[in-house]
Amino acid sequence: MTIRKAVITAAGEQHAQLPLQSLVTADGRDRTVLQTTIEQIAESGIEEIALIVRPGMSSAYLDAAGLTGPDLLIIEQHNPRGYGDAILRAEEFLGDEPFLHLVSDHLFLSRAEKPCARQLIEVAEQHDCCVCAIQPTRENEIGSFGTVGGIPVARETGLYEVSGIIEKPTPTIAEQHLIVPGQRSGYYLCLFGMHVLTPSVLRELRKRRDASSNDVFNLSGALNDLCQSERCLAYSINGTRCNISQKYGLLLAQLAISLNGQDRDLILRELVQLLAIQSQ
Amino acid sequence: MTIRKAVITAAGEQHAQLPLQSLVTADGRDRTVLQTTIEQIAESGIEEIALIVRPGMSSAYLDAAGLTGPDLLIIEQHNPRGYGDAILRAEEFLGDEPFLHLVSDHLFLSRAEKPCARQLIEVAEQHDCCVCAIQPTRENEIGSFGTVGGIPVARETGLYEVSGIIEKPTPTIAEQHLIVPGQRSGYYLCLFGMHVLTPSVLRELRKRRDASSNDVFNLSGALNDLCQSERCLAYSINGTRCNISQKYGLLLAQLAISLNGQDRDLILRELVQLLAIQSQ
Repeated sequence: MTIRKAVITAAGEQHAQLPLQSLVTADGRDRTVLQTTIEQIAESGIEEIALIVRPGMSSAYLDAAGLTGPDLLIIEQHNPRGYGDAILRAEEFLGDEPFLHLVSDHLFLSRAEKPCARQLIEVAEQHDCCVCAIQPTRENEIGSFGTVGGIPVARETGLYEVSGIIEKPTPTIAEQHLIVPGQRSGYYLCLFGMHVLTPSVLRELRKRRDASSNDVFNLSGALNDLCQSERCLAYSINGTRCNISQKYGLLLAQLAISLNGQDRDLILRELVQLLAIQSQ
Repeated sequence: MTIRKAVITAAGEQHAQLPLQSLVTADGRDRTVLQTTIEQIAESGIEEIALIVRPGMSSAYLDAAGLTGPDLLIIEQHNPRGYGDAILRAEEFLGDEPFLHLVSDHLFLSRAEKPCARQLIEVAEQHDCCVCAIQPTRENEIGSFGTVGGIPVARETGLYEVSGIIEKPTPTIAEQHLIVPGQRSGYYLCLFGMHVLTPSVLRELRKRRDASSNDVFNLSGALNDLCQSERCLAYSINGTRCNISQKYGLLLAQLAISLNGQDRDLILRELVQLLAIQSQ
């Protein structure tokens, strides 16, 4: 399996402006959130990107994407039927290829030399199947995420065979269905906002689209069904995701980037100065 | 003198996206930079606003301004001739009234009960003349600002009679022309990015526009000439300005707001957690 194509979904109602926001990268360059995502996946080997946006947002996204990088196809999601439907809008672009999928309101910060997307792609190419990026997450936060149940793959670190996915579970449901052997107590495997998906996933999504004419359908449901009949893996990325759609999400993402970047000392100095002024 | 109108200049080449950026206010609301500025001046008594923007940016600014607030007139600055010219594009809107002027790439954070703009307007209405908001600024930073020379007004705190304004002076020039009696050594009075301007200022700007057909002209030059013939004051605002066009400007502005806002504890907690992770 070779992953050359990516789909970025940016058509959510609440989050349309987020990928257009500015930030400063770890090496001090001004970029939009969208540009940093595109740069990361270009560096991970992606050659073509489809970007799914809300109607009327094409030109703003085209501006925010910048001029360089992989080929970019922008698709407006008219008559939206949710997150699964947004991915499906790229079916013509994708043809019969496996692809990388990313949400547009997360920033993916690697703690390794390779970008998060590259780490994921390498696992998918090696195992030749659908792989969800995941992150061990404390029980009190699982209500915000798709959460994965499964069993560790023998002789592999951070790799799991997925047995089910439940979107935003309660702690009780999680305890009954999503406990994964070997995890720290109180931790679950939550989706990271990044997947390698196969044409089988599109097939599952198409079933949902065609079953009804206006129901909303998401990705987790399709993946949950798929993993009953086909091998799906989950891989724990060496990195962290910042969900910028949360309150103060962009501030905390920028801090996480900068406190780990070339201007760490400058930011710390300014912080101390701000704290000193505030307490005067 | 009563100040009912405001002009916000947002037509600078480098800064067009800045007023469109999102932030979280001190009381936890999601707002664009432009909205926070508009809210502050509405709260300060302004009823009508002219916003000068780059060609093609009207609809993005209209979206970013939000739906409520004072009457808003958006004017695109075609064939731009600089900052002074941008203000002059509002001459029809202004008629013969004094007005508040603000730059759009600064955030103005009050340390008093009244917003920065209200503090300034009250001084102008009381003294019935042009007033520049200023902030005592250390010598090493004056190269980034218009800097004011003058003498303290007797029996008033923080109020100065302006004798001259020099745009971005060197320390040598400042030492020769801009020392203000009573300032801490090494400090100068730098423009805050907010003025109350009178129709006389528009007259000075018109002279510059008509003197040549394509020279760029700025506001400081016009103010410098005006203060030779007419009383101009400078008032030291009880607050701070965050220049978000500087590197990390938006990050530091957001921190300054949040560390002084209702979510101070939350932000401090997240900061400590981030610092702990980074040093692992």
